[in-house]
Amino acid sequence: MLPFVKYHGLGNDYVYVDGFTHDVPDPAGLARAVSPRNFAIGADGLILVLPATPGGGAAGAHCRMRMFNADGSEGQMCGNGLRCVVKFAHDHALFAGSNAARPMRVETGAGVLAVGYDLDAAGRVATVTVDMGRPILAPERVPVDVSELEPGAGEHAWRIPATDTTPPQEAVLVSMGNPHAVLFRDDPLDAAEERRIGAALEHHRAFPERMNLHAVHVRGGGEVDVVHWERGSGPTLACGTGAAAVCVAGVLTGRTPHRITTHLPGGPLVLDWAETTGRVAMTGPAVEAFTGVWRGPL
Amino acid sequence: MLPFVKYHGLGNDYVYVDGFTHDVPDPAGLARAVSPRNFAIGADGLILVLPATPGGGAAGAHCRMRMFNADGSEGQMCGNGLRCVVKFAHDHALFAGSNAARPMRVETGAGVLAVGYDLDAAGRVATVTVDMGRPILAPERVPVDVSELEPGAGEHAWRIPATDTTPPQEAVLVSMGNPHAVLFRDDPLDAAEERRIGAALEHHRAFPERMNLHAVHVRGGGEVDVVHWERGSGPTLACGTGAAAVCVAGVLTGRTPHRITTHLPGGPLVLDWAETTGRVAMTGPAVEAFTGVWRGPL
Repeated sequence: MLPFVKYHGLGNDYVYVDGFTHDVPDPAGLARAVSPRNFAIGADGLILVLPATPGGGAAGAHCRMRMFNADGSEGQMCGNGLRCVVKFAHDHALFAGSNAARPMRVETGAGVLAVGYDLDAAGRVATVTVDMGRPILAPERVPVDVSELEPGAGEHAWRIPATDTTPPQEAVLVSMGNPHAVLFRDDPLDAAEERRIGAALEHHRAFPERMNLHAVHVRGGGEVDVVHWERGSGPTLACGTGAAAVCVAGVLTGRTPHRITTHLPGGPLVLDWAETTGRVAMTGPAVEAFTGVWRGPL
Repeated sequence: MLPFVKYHGLGNDYVYVDGFTHDVPDPAGLARAVSPRNFAIGADGLILVLPATPGGGAAGAHCRMRMFNADGSEGQMCGNGLRCVVKFAHDHALFAGSNAARPMRVETGAGVLAVGYDLDAAGRVATVTVDMGRPILAPERVPVDVSELEPGAGEHAWRIPATDTTPPQEAVLVSMGNPHAVLFRDDPLDAAEERRIGAALEHHRAFPERMNLHAVHVRGGGEVDVVHWERGSGPTLACGTGAAAVCVAGVLTGRTPHRITTHLPGGPLVLDWAETTGRVAMTGPAVEAFTGVWRGPL
């Protein structure tokens, strides 16, 4: 009998378990058991919140997150999940002083990350701000094989030549630890058409590690609409690193200010590329959907 | 703060609420709130289990089920849901004597139905048997416009002529309160091809109220595989009335015995067309996935 809480960040939902109190001997197996949507709890996977690893690189961390995808594979980090980890630890008092740990330092597969947050009127976490680090723009480090591309309009734009099924595309190429191609559109987005283009270009020969593609329409006033195509997943509700890449690409091409609101299919994220530090901060919601008790296999 | 239990019958899952104890002022709104899979509890809809309507046609019923689809529309009946209603009422002791009400008489939008069940070693409901009534075979009552069809091989078979996108189909046409076309295949089923055919023929001009289509491969020994195409829904995990129609069609064409096991995408159902009464009994599982507490809008 295992208590859990289901949280989502813009529709990216996981089953969260308090690993300070409960022992989970086989988290990969539990992730596979709880994730099927019609037959079990239903989620994109399982996230355990645990005591930080003693000593080593996790010195000073308040807690540790381990995330497991629905297929049982372990992920390194997930921005939508990290926001919910902080809300879970704070609101449910997972460790002594959890409601005073601000910023909260969370040990992840991508190192210890300091996470800020704001509280609502009831004293519960409402929005969470995650440091997404600095963008990587050198094409060979995105990575992109520019010999397969043509120069675009301006320093940071590249042109993907027409293929059998897609017209030429102007793209800004940015890594936020994973590769992104940002495609600005003059007209409001046609999601179906963008999915078709994303599917066609994910495996383009210019992209040796495949590519995440984001179609963007600038509404003006620092508000943009985004449709994602994530490598290996296809269309998704919210891609935090992709939204950060959109912010960087907008600044580099003079289309948007340093602080923007990205309207993703799952909801809004605020991105801020700080001129002083060069780091991108992502602010977004963390929502508790419901609490439950699992009596199935552990 | 509303306690709930999530049950599924072959993957057809609903949020179940004890209406004997809890007042639900706006069930249609609650169904819309709890059903989204990434953002809320996630389900095909909401089922309330309530006291039977005093007097009238519900005399003698132990309880009443009301079902609401994810869009808030109210449904009349659902075989997968009815099985879970009986398990919920029995295992969670929703009313006095609920563990002795066998068969349990449940008031539904399709009248009061008597439902039998078997218990597991722990004394909880394992499988549930629902009386699906008698098949209707007169084409005009299915309904089918046979002037658009050709006679098939044998008394009960009709031939759907080739269309622009589908080859000719031999079909047995059966109503179980809703219309079904059963298409027997010699080879193991190709689910993608059957979905293509289902989509193409759902709206055929021979079917004035559209059609549910079921492709069937007889393994032998009373075991059959089925792929569904439900009107308005497309491919589904389990269609109880469709499985009953498959049972009837198998007997009428001499392909299967009166009692068969249908292997649906969501799992197995046992169907039994009784020679003495002409009624079809459906036996299948009801599974408690987890318990939870909803703190969102009521």
